[in-house]
Amino acid sequence: EHAGSEESVPAQPPFSARGMGVEEFFQRSIGEWRSQRSSHNLLWQQFEQVESEIVIENVTAEDEEVKGVCEQYKADADSIALAIRMSWEGTSDWDEDEVLKGSTVLVVLKDSETSGRLLRSVGYAEEIPAVGQWRMETDGVFVLDTSYDRAGAEERIWFATPDLRMRVSMIKTAGNTGVLTASFSSEIRRRGAGK
Amino acid sequence: EHAGSEESVPAQPPFSARGMGVEEFFQRSIGEWRSQRSSHNLLWQQFEQVESEIVIENVTAEDEEVKGVCEQYKADADSIALAIRMSWEGTSDWDEDEVLKGSTVLVVLKDSETSGRLLRSVGYAEEIPAVGQWRMETDGVFVLDTSYDRAGAEERIWFATPDLRMRVSMIKTAGNTGVLTASFSSEIRRRGAGK
Repeated sequence: EHAGSEESVPAQPPFSARGMGVEEFFQRSIGEWRSQRSSHNLLWQQFEQVESEIVIENVTAEDEEVKGVCEQYKADADSIALAIRMSWEGTSDWDEDEVLKGSTVLVVLKDSETSGRLLRSVGYAEEIPAVGQWRMETDGVFVLDTSYDRAGAEERIWFATPDLRMRVSMIKTAGNTGVLTASFSSEIRRRGAGK
Repeated sequence: EHAGSEESVPAQPPFSARGMGVEEFFQRSIGEWRSQRSSHNLLWQQFEQVESEIVIENVTAEDEEVKGVCEQYKADADSIALAIRMSWEGTSDWDEDEVLKGSTVLVVLKDSETSGRLLRSVGYAEEIPAVGQWRMETDGVFVLDTSYDRAGAEERIWFATPDLRMRVSMIKTAGNTGVLTASFSSEIRRRGAGK
């Protein structure tokens, strides 16, 4: 109806994550997020739904937890590209009364501009500490591969818009031959949470 | 317990979709699939779960529906790289009594080795016919962008293993400024369904 007023809005090129580097990826991840997560158990064809709040903050190389995880993995503090603390609190539709809560520190080391290692602290939820291999794909997807004794995990995380992060996770059998569960998270930045 | 017998199993390199071309992507898609799909309504923070059966078949340029969609979009039948028919039948947890059922023909045209157009027929479910832009990413992800009058859609589909297809879909506002819904499908190949 009012084509004239529409024309007066400057055209914005649509957001694209293509070519995003690992520093920008983590910088954009800083903030408060509201997450919807769906898990598919591929063996039993079951669904799980989790709603949670996620907070991601920068931490420095001087942080005690960062120091601890670097010591554990014999990583030189000078080789740290960046480090963050991720905290989450949520509930699953499998048990509405149980609060899923935890926090972990992630330390990113670069082997090249587009790949390296990611160290994870045990965290308050007593997760298993782990070291994973990360890479940035050309289309801006951050991919993290982690091997455990009896299983493996692959995560693919990318920005659909500056305020919407998508995350696909797979839990694999040892040897990466099969996938046990696949899950998908939509993470929306909380308005007014600042950046 | 029997380390010796384990050692006698030849080691297989883990599957990787990296470098997959569009022909291989569609050839691997042929078959019968069992799908778990989760949709996230990002505005209302709602979840939907859909279970369905999907059948994907090769069709030739002589197929009536293929001819029809090529005529509709003024596409030269000689420029067809490949064409498939996709049929699905499923139910949503929002309404267990309603059967979601449909079929559509997809015609792939190549503008380059890694990009081109995808034409979609109306299909029995009376979906909107549409022409989308596809590209293969270096890590083997098939990306499809489709613009409608008042909305846009982006799909990212890739093989986690030869028998597991992952699909992330987003419905965007016109102009690609915001995302309304994000959905995730795990598609497992039916055993013995052949290829």
